[in-house]
Amino acid sequence: MEPQENSLEDTPLQINGERLWQRLMTMATHGATPRGGCNRQALTDVDRRGRDLFVDWCREAGYDTRVDAIGNIFARRAGMEALPPVLTGSHLDTQPTGGKFDGVYGVLAGLEVLNTLDEQGIATRHPLEVAVWTNEEGCRFPSAMLGSAVWGGSMALADALALEDREGHSVGDELVRIGYAGQEEASARPLKAAFELHIEQGPVLEAEQLDIGIVTGVQHMSRHLVTFSGEATHAGPTPMSMRRDPVRALSALLPELYKLVEEHGVDTRVTVGFLDARPGAGNTVPHTVELTVDVRHPLAAVYSDLRAAVTDLAAGAATGAGVTAEVACLWEAPGVSFDESCVASVRTATQRLGLRARGIVSGAGHDACNLAGVAPTGMIFIPCEGGVSHNEAEAITPAQATAGANVLLHAMLEQAERP
Amino acid sequence: MEPQENSLEDTPLQINGERLWQRLMTMATHGATPRGGCNRQALTDVDRRGRDLFVDWCREAGYDTRVDAIGNIFARRAGMEALPPVLTGSHLDTQPTGGKFDGVYGVLAGLEVLNTLDEQGIATRHPLEVAVWTNEEGCRFPSAMLGSAVWGGSMALADALALEDREGHSVGDELVRIGYAGQEEASARPLKAAFELHIEQGPVLEAEQLDIGIVTGVQHMSRHLVTFSGEATHAGPTPMSMRRDPVRALSALLPELYKLVEEHGVDTRVTVGFLDARPGAGNTVPHTVELTVDVRHPLAAVYSDLRAAVTDLAAGAATGAGVTAEVACLWEAPGVSFDESCVASVRTATQRLGLRARGIVSGAGHDACNLAGVAPTGMIFIPCEGGVSHNEAEAITPAQATAGANVLLHAMLEQAERP
Repeated sequence: MEPQENSLEDTPLQINGERLWQRLMTMATHGATPRGGCNRQALTDVDRRGRDLFVDWCREAGYDTRVDAIGNIFARRAGMEALPPVLTGSHLDTQPTGGKFDGVYGVLAGLEVLNTLDEQGIATRHPLEVAVWTNEEGCRFPSAMLGSAVWGGSMALADALALEDREGHSVGDELVRIGYAGQEEASARPLKAAFELHIEQGPVLEAEQLDIGIVTGVQHMSRHLVTFSGEATHAGPTPMSMRRDPVRALSALLPELYKLVEEHGVDTRVTVGFLDARPGAGNTVPHTVELTVDVRHPLAAVYSDLRAAVTDLAAGAATGAGVTAEVACLWEAPGVSFDESCVASVRTATQRLGLRARGIVSGAGHDACNLAGVAPTGMIFIPCEGGVSHNEAEAITPAQATAGANVLLHAMLEQAERP
Repeated sequence: MEPQENSLEDTPLQINGERLWQRLMTMATHGATPRGGCNRQALTDVDRRGRDLFVDWCREAGYDTRVDAIGNIFARRAGMEALPPVLTGSHLDTQPTGGKFDGVYGVLAGLEVLNTLDEQGIATRHPLEVAVWTNEEGCRFPSAMLGSAVWGGSMALADALALEDREGHSVGDELVRIGYAGQEEASARPLKAAFELHIEQGPVLEAEQLDIGIVTGVQHMSRHLVTFSGEATHAGPTPMSMRRDPVRALSALLPELYKLVEEHGVDTRVTVGFLDARPGAGNTVPHTVELTVDVRHPLAAVYSDLRAAVTDLAAGAATGAGVTAEVACLWEAPGVSFDESCVASVRTATQRLGLRARGIVSGAGHDACNLAGVAPTGMIFIPCEGGVSHNEAEAITPAQATAGANVLLHAMLEQAERP
């Protein structure tokens, strides 16, 4: 029986940070962009080359590699017993002007964990798996986290295969074309635990000079389209009191939205990302103003308040300006609370490794959200430079990459159980 | 010597309202749109047909008709003496989905005045002229009030002739093509007085159930592009306190802009016609917000305050939100105070005709603005339905058209002096 904690003299098991970094750089050559980023959109030829590279590395290491009907790849290192596997995974596809680390880092760190255990001759009772989920980004095919959604049961396979890109190519046809329309059924199997290691894509860890974010959950989030409708009139002759000006409604709504943040605390996120006035001529009072309001909060009750407030505040702002308001929910994703045992494994790993860590709630969705409904799931964040992501400038250091992969190693190892 | 005021028994001289209306309807057949409006953009084939029709009517009546180098047409009814003429005019070109009356009404009412005097056998000491100004709308060629600007000296002829439409056709080439590149020099000659009769293009006269607006001047006006620049970040992971969100600056600016109206009185106009957030994605805090701010006021001192306030308020709003603000003046038109004698002639005419009238300041620019710098100038407004203009639904009644033309008749007659 091993001790509960390694003594300070013991160096905890470590992954090979140099190999992990080399593989990140090699993967980044597929779809490399002039400004140092990656364009490896889902099910393109460069996505196939990235997938092939990953599969080659897995087969060289002797891992059984399978592909399911939505193109998810699973590489398995055998366990000592016929038990459900401990899985880690993320995605290899990128935004059109994406970076080298979003998704890719989680996949290659998983492979690095398996390689490290091989080299150290460490067997586990549970098998270990590394998953590559199809079309996480949702930029070529308009549904983010597609492969994990089908696998987790929140999206029908037929619907996913029928999705088309702007040129009319379907997911199903493109999977066949690149050779990743697999035989395995695309649905959840029993897992002992699942982890996803990812860059934070936000500025909190860097600002607080931390190594690791122990992700306890994902925010509740939704996006709403607010449409204020008034009457277009000439900017000159029409007195202000005779206008039905939708910008006046916007003028009343925006300060109220920012006040929500003050009223609901620092975990509140309110974002107006899209704004448009029509007809959009400088000398014409617009007849229509449209804006999107994205609201997020980790607590369900607070989130519900925020969501309801958007509609109420828009209606109030419209009435005051003599225009009408419509509010349509464009998208909603319920929040996730990760599994306590998985979160504990991540926390224990950071302690064992002496890393500076904090609990954090993810503001963005990840494949792990789709797994959380069907398996005990946890996530690990590492900082990224300036919090920048979905951008060719996305950057992490080799030391940060190594630290996160070591946490993944220890968390998986605890769940997979040494004999 | 005639009495200062006609006695109540006398019926003042009247134009032929039926003929005027018929001509308006005939002119509207050139470029008629399915929804009852007109598309007769400057220097197109339909503009030529409209011009030809006007010139035919003038020649039938025996008026000397000349065309200048920028295509302005002048029809002259001779005076008894070699004195500067009393001129009225407006434009025949329309917006792409324009109405039947904007501009056209002023031209055909002028012709009606001359015809009426012929029929009544009334001679005047000063000659009378009706002008058709080229490209008032500025929609095909991007400079509004072009013909009157060249004539009035605020724009060089060569610059005007070189202007191109979106297909690369120049004003100069199109004038030659439609046969309206005239011989006469396009520059101001001495005028006794100039008048422009126009639909209000605003809702004030209709709302107050008046027949006539005695236009005392044109507002000072300018348009400004405000650009707030911050940083694009993900709507989820980035805490509100770490954002540099240009929408927050907009949220601070808009209420201040509307407050300007309260502080500077009912003649103030502040219009945000254009609004844009970039990149414009619902899940991204924008890096840039752009808006136009159009400010107008009839009094120079108040207008100056408003104009300065736009820059100050934008700067203050940016500082509070941690972003930067740039304010660029896109366009500025100084206000105009019309000639006291011309305004008095319009007022006297409304009194003589027993019409309900008020003084009014034009919120929009007109060819008369370009004449006001080189000749004693006045304007007359009639109401239009709902204040709607630049729209196929633009509407006036025959009675309204007649009333305005009668005012023009009496104002011109007073200035042209009966022997």
